[in-house]
Amino acid sequence: MHETSLFEGTRDYNPKQMAIREKVFNIIISCFKRHGAETIDTPVFELKETLTGKYGEDSKLIYDLKDQGGELLSLRYDLTVPFARYLAMNKITNIKRYHIAKVYRRDNPAMTRGRYREFYQCDFDIAGQYDAMIPDAECLKIVYEILNELDLGDFHIKVNDRRILDGMFAVCGVPGEKFRTICSTVDKLDKMAWEDVKKEMVNEKGLSEDVADRIGEYVSMQGGQDLAERLLQDPKLSQNKQACAGLTDMKLLFSYLELFQVTDKVVFDLSLARGLDYYTGVIYEAILSQTIPAPAEQNGADEAGVSVGSVAGGGRYDGLVGMFDPKGRKVPCVGVSIGIERIFSIMEQKAETSSEKVRTTETQVLVASAQKNLLEERLKLTSELWNAGIKVEVLYKKNPKLLSQLQHCEETGIPLVAILGEQELKDGVVKLRNVASREEVDVPRADLVDEIKKRTL
Amino acid sequence: MHETSLFEGTRDYNPKQMAIREKVFNIIISCFKRHGAETIDTPVFELKETLTGKYGEDSKLIYDLKDQGGELLSLRYDLTVPFARYLAMNKITNIKRYHIAKVYRRDNPAMTRGRYREFYQCDFDIAGQYDAMIPDAECLKIVYEILNELDLGDFHIKVNDRRILDGMFAVCGVPGEKFRTICSTVDKLDKMAWEDVKKEMVNEKGLSEDVADRIGEYVSMQGGQDLAERLLQDPKLSQNKQACAGLTDMKLLFSYLELFQVTDKVVFDLSLARGLDYYTGVIYEAILSQTIPAPAEQNGADEAGVSVGSVAGGGRYDGLVGMFDPKGRKVPCVGVSIGIERIFSIMEQKAETSSEKVRTTETQVLVASAQKNLLEERLKLTSELWNAGIKVEVLYKKNPKLLSQLQHCEETGIPLVAILGEQELKDGVVKLRNVASREEVDVPRADLVDEIKKRTL
Repeated sequence: MHETSLFEGTRDYNPKQMAIREKVFNIIISCFKRHGAETIDTPVFELKETLTGKYGEDSKLIYDLKDQGGELLSLRYDLTVPFARYLAMNKITNIKRYHIAKVYRRDNPAMTRGRYREFYQCDFDIAGQYDAMIPDAECLKIVYEILNELDLGDFHIKVNDRRILDGMFAVCGVPGEKFRTICSTVDKLDKMAWEDVKKEMVNEKGLSEDVADRIGEYVSMQGGQDLAERLLQDPKLSQNKQACAGLTDMKLLFSYLELFQVTDKVVFDLSLARGLDYYTGVIYEAILSQTIPAPAEQNGADEAGVSVGSVAGGGRYDGLVGMFDPKGRKVPCVGVSIGIERIFSIMEQKAETSSEKVRTTETQVLVASAQKNLLEERLKLTSELWNAGIKVEVLYKKNPKLLSQLQHCEETGIPLVAILGEQELKDGVVKLRNVASREEVDVPRADLVDEIKKRTL
Repeated sequence: MHETSLFEGTRDYNPKQMAIREKVFNIIISCFKRHGAETIDTPVFELKETLTGKYGEDSKLIYDLKDQGGELLSLRYDLTVPFARYLAMNKITNIKRYHIAKVYRRDNPAMTRGRYREFYQCDFDIAGQYDAMIPDAECLKIVYEILNELDLGDFHIKVNDRRILDGMFAVCGVPGEKFRTICSTVDKLDKMAWEDVKKEMVNEKGLSEDVADRIGEYVSMQGGQDLAERLLQDPKLSQNKQACAGLTDMKLLFSYLELFQVTDKVVFDLSLARGLDYYTGVIYEAILSQTIPAPAEQNGADEAGVSVGSVAGGGRYDGLVGMFDPKGRKVPCVGVSIGIERIFSIMEQKAETSSEKVRTTETQVLVASAQKNLLEERLKLTSELWNAGIKVEVLYKKNPKLLSQLQHCEETGIPLVAILGEQELKDGVVKLRNVASREEVDVPRADLVDEIKKRTL
């Protein structure tokens, strides 16, 4: 006899949650397939050394396996590092792949807010040496399509470029060794007011007031292609090589986004920084406009540092694969991670407030009887229908009451009942009942399969 | 710079393997849904105490997580114990569910033979207090349907009952405390000759020669409903209450299997024992008739002790859920586990010897051009087709050669190319090329979506 419980920060998915999860995955996977993506899978644990040195401070959140007399193993922390390891190990230089799988973080769980220690990631990445900004634009098109189809309300996608950020820091007078730490501070602008961000820059990170103020001017800028053009004329930024490269690519990106008809939702936003170290070029993040009260905080599904309402994020990381190649050969990559756990939470809340009941099975018909001693006839008909590809249930009772059979249909949403009785057997028919309308019709046994298909299209 | 490798006994799935895996899962999941099953998911790690005491000697194969200052955690060893824990924890007394997920065993990997430390299990179970043998018969029907649809060649399904085995041991004179260990020895009959099994019983397990010989007579028996009837008349067995209960249920089971039209593949076989302790009633195992050279040994995907060629197994376990309930309340369960890793291996081998190439994407059309400076037109058309739900790729190059665009189609199996040129743009048409036949036709742009759909049904 055990006390039964789960480890805090993990959870079971019940059938209703699984039905919602399946619906969301279907929409997302269809989109990935529409864009010609393949899929791969990697083990849930990697050699510890594979993960070492990839996550900076977050490395402390990695789950290690017990040393039971073999090698040191860790549970995967995200899908990007295993992807880079896979490419390097198999010497793959071109691939467009998606990967949907669970990852693990020893974080403080906040389960009411959708933050778990075990959660799904849902990644799409394009690896390969291509002409600038074409794959990057496709990633944004994919985010746009998925958020549209999931019907989560209005959203916008912020884009920026690490090179623009670095160039901006340089021309504002931030010392090179402080680029990263200032970048993390800028990343807090989605949750903190500029005044507080500035305070952190000055008091904690040691910038002078006027350097911070110069940064403050830039990071308040938002726009589209026009803003990229304007900044290319900026007397200071235009002198910085990195910034110019980033701004030129940003212009190009917007021209492709125009062709993809997604510029209505995309904003060039100089305050977007994103937490992860490995980004080298364009970065982006999709944010839902409507505020959904719970989960009110960042969920674990996304990278560190994403804002309230963020449901997707990603960017270009051209250096990561090279870290796994013995000769350091680089494979340029750009990708996006869909914040699938956040999306599950929203869809679950929508389902709860909706009048439409979530079905957890796809059963089309229940084979039933009002009379006793017809179990064998019920099983025979059930088998006939299974063999014809119909989704059928039958109660596992010798003599169930008709009422309990009908109740089972109402509870689980089965739309039809095929009722057998002595008279129907004699006449070679089956009484087909519509559960919702209670309408009944006698169907010749030979036509039953077609009739069920017709009525459950 | 790291050496990149994987932990022995784990593997990546490449896109081709994933395509095969998806095909197999689709067949299996469709069958489960046809039978009205819901699905659930549980965490990859459970509290260590949840797994303790459930697997007998195999407990040493459980992976533990490192104690990083929280509770003691273990990776799941199968899906049955988490299922029982889930039922008890949520006080669920009725459910028909499937669960497809990875499990972990610290076994000696034999990867060439398909035995891994991380592998999928694919379980279908029916929990609830129902009339005898109806859910049990459905489990066998499901195995029959899945093996038929997977088209793995001829197969048969052995059935037996733990109560018949126990009754048989009793009437043969095996002391009660040796039932289990003798059961494991009987279980080896699928890999060892009777002479060797007998030797083990006598020399290692301490049975007398004539007790072993009496067992030997019974375990050589195979048949159907007739055998169950005959054994119910057996002067010794008919005196044993357990055996009678098992044989009566076996008769009933066969009558249902008759209605389900699956008796051509089902054999009542008194030598079937199965390794796991928790079975309490009917047990079964499906075996492929044709011998596939590699993987020649039992894979990890199934329970311990399955035979060469075994691709599914299961049985009734009425006591497991009660082990998790504080009051010991029982929930009767019967289920089946599909040996999915073995099936993947077979399907991969079939794919390798087949002339038909496995596609790893579903792309219907590549948008291409033979002329320079048409990137924007290509992207625009690509976007139009994505928006219409067509699966489209476009090369990420400003000016790719037509040859490399056609080669990409041939390598990845894309059936159609939509070719744009100055003339086509002027005429408002797209040249649609069939990659295999090389036939080309000009399609008005407005008809393109329908034409692609028609040609890629």
